[in-house]
Amino acid sequence: MLKQHIITLTTDFGLTDEFVGVMKGVILSHAPATTLIDISHAIPPQDIREGARTLFTSYHYFPVGTVHLIVIDPGVGTSRKLLALQADNHFFVGPDNGVFTPFLQHDLVQQSFTLENRDLFLADISTTFHGRDIMAPVAARISMGMELHHVGSSIHPSQCCQIDLPAAKHRGNRISGHVIHVDHFGNLRTSITTEDLATIHNKTELSIQCGKHFIQGLSSSYDAVPEGRLLAIFDSRKHLEIAANRGNGARILECGVGEEVIVTHYS
Amino acid sequence: MLKQHIITLTTDFGLTDEFVGVMKGVILSHAPATTLIDISHAIPPQDIREGARTLFTSYHYFPVGTVHLIVIDPGVGTSRKLLALQADNHFFVGPDNGVFTPFLQHDLVQQSFTLENRDLFLADISTTFHGRDIMAPVAARISMGMELHHVGSSIHPSQCCQIDLPAAKHRGNRISGHVIHVDHFGNLRTSITTEDLATIHNKTELSIQCGKHFIQGLSSSYDAVPEGRLLAIFDSRKHLEIAANRGNGARILECGVGEEVIVTHYS
Amino acid sequence: MLKQHIITLTTDFGLTDEFVGVMKGVILSHAPATTLIDISHAIPPQDIREGARTLFTSYHYFPVGTVHLIVIDPGVGTSRKLLALQADNHFFVGPDNGVFTPFLQHDLVQQSFTLENRDLFLADISTTFHGRDIMAPVAARISMGMELHHVGSSIHPSQCCQIDLPAAKHRGNRISGHVIHVDHFGNLRTSITTEDLATIHNKTELSIQCGKHFIQGLSSSYDAVPEGRLLAIFDSRKHLEIAANRGNGARILECGVGEEVIVTHYS
Repeated sequence: MLKQHIITLTTDFGLTDEFVGVMKGVILSHAPATTLIDISHAIPPQDIREGARTLFTSYHYFPVGTVHLIVIDPGVGTSRKLLALQADNHFFVGPDNGVFTPFLQHDLVQQSFTLENRDLFLADISTTFHGRDIMAPVAARISMGMELHHVGSSIHPSQCCQIDLPAAKHRGNRISGHVIHVDHFGNLRTSITTEDLATIHNKTELSIQCGKHFIQGLSSSYDAVPEGRLLAIFDSRKHLEIAANRGNGARILECGVGEEVIVTHYS
Repeated sequence: MLKQHIITLTTDFGLTDEFVGVMKGVILSHAPATTLIDISHAIPPQDIREGARTLFTSYHYFPVGTVHLIVIDPGVGTSRKLLALQADNHFFVGPDNGVFTPFLQHDLVQQSFTLENRDLFLADISTTFHGRDIMAPVAARISMGMELHHVGSSIHPSQCCQIDLPAAKHRGNRISGHVIHVDHFGNLRTSITTEDLATIHNKTELSIQCGKHFIQGLSSSYDAVPEGRLLAIFDSRKHLEIAANRGNGARILECGVGEEVIVTHYS
Repeated sequence: MLKQHIITLTTDFGLTDEFVGVMKGVILSHAPATTLIDISHAIPPQDIREGARTLFTSYHYFPVGTVHLIVIDPGVGTSRKLLALQADNHFFVGPDNGVFTPFLQHDLVQQSFTLENRDLFLADISTTFHGRDIMAPVAARISMGMELHHVGSSIHPSQCCQIDLPAAKHRGNRISGHVIHVDHFGNLRTSITTEDLATIHNKTELSIQCGKHFIQGLSSSYDAVPEGRLLAIFDSRKHLEIAANRGNGARILECGVGEEVIVTHYS
């Protein structure tokens, strides 16, 4: 049976320039039958934290064995390492700057290597675009079945760079977190998860404060409140989300990433 | 011979978040060799009308048998139905909220079912993202050749939701319509079609009013008027379009979707 | 072995409308197993110069034999010609308006024909979208292995349209050029190339002026200067680039495309 090779791409490159296209050209030059899927190219420039979160909440919707290439690389051209990992039976290629933090924190890494084998890179390596010159051709070879140890030296997961991804804080009947992402619809994702609220059995007996606004209880659909009104709901990533029914929550709340969110419960 | 499976995607998700990427991951998990083509992810949020028009003017450029997945779904999580249709020998999956109105109006629907077979859905169904959890895995199976009746119960086309898509109005020597879309170039598509103007034999003997501007006659190319000047032309969807040669018509006219457009003819 | 067909797309269509999607539908209707790769759809409307540069710096990252479709076509519907070329062992389809200038200037064109064979076009040809109606179906056939001469008449490369793509000017110890592109990160690409600076052996002994700002010497990585500070570097296209470390150079400089850039060297 024909094995299907998949490589996903997550970058902060945007889609206005040719950067994503030429990375795909390099991949197809080494792995002609690969299916290339964009996860997002709108990670805010240099935002390693958002890149890490996006990759971690997306990868498991792809088949086991998929190669995930993540290029958010403000340190390009410096001595920062580049990594190839196997984690949770998927493969990953990206810079060693914290983009793989959730995989390291959850002990999912099965193999980890630094990219050193220049035979796998493009002949001509620029100082500003290692996504194209190093990471893309390596990801292509991994998708073709090359074993990971060919990329370079083994590195212990504990030696890989981790960044701070703050979790919600619990104190008495209050859980405090913050807005971590505003999506295309203006929905505000918070750092508070279904797990944080797991012990609260009656989801109507809580109130959520964000900016100057208070929301009472959790809704089970956007349409559960009148059009244009704010609501709180568990989003598709299992995070607490603040949204407006058929409206833009961020615009109504006049707040964005970093804003504090406090859940108070009475049960 | 290898059959080529194609699934197109039309959504209001935008391209900044991972939403489109994870839907594709789900599809590839169930239909590994599928070719995935984006029609548009920039349908204005919750704009069922624009989604319906975009899908209807695009689908027939794809091969017969293509599966078209459309996710503009403000009612997600409520009791609104989800549909799988065969129409004009293509397949369609989307919410029952009017996005299929033109297919219903033109009597093109050959088979129609509601999505009920949970064996086809993801195990874990969120309240906010049925595109990923229900519609994507069903579309994948249909593209792999699964017969439509496996998705759930039959529903008669007359029971499917339709929305109002107002056509141009004829009165004496005047045809009135409105701007229904402004494209990337600032060209204004109107609800007036080639058919509406079919009986006017001399296309120079008409004038078009939009906002405070009058345009005399129809052009056969953008370059038929001097640079920066307004013109009227039949666009690639066979609608009357108002544009500016190498300029942005919407900016010059200072008007957008909803603006009235009146054609007066003298023949 | 299965030959892999690749078609790249470069347009000024943007991604909000269905234009790119329907071109892909037409291609897949004639070449079902084609891999379709977007280079960019954000070429500024009607900007033939930027389209020409983007295509020329991107194509060679794709495998030999790739078909590159470029649709920046303000003259659509007029008598401007459409071309199919073989150059540097790749294939190209696009309007004869200068988008192929760098290939012509570098004498890379191996075969050149004008598109005339209506049997290859869609049956119904609009006046505003020849990318869909003419160029896409022709590109599809070329990717399937059709020999180029089937598209129409031979045209000598010297008869193809060329546009002015101004190079940097050298005078004494000064090299003057200008900003030709601002990328997604706010990095400013200039018309000054590595070749222009090849004779300057000590890259610290030069200063770069752009707007009211002066930058001393060339950096070998973005991180070589403190965060937020301006630097000059050779970019991934081998052009002199002005950027800010983890910041937006264009915003700091308050300048964009067209701004003069002067390099003064002391060696």
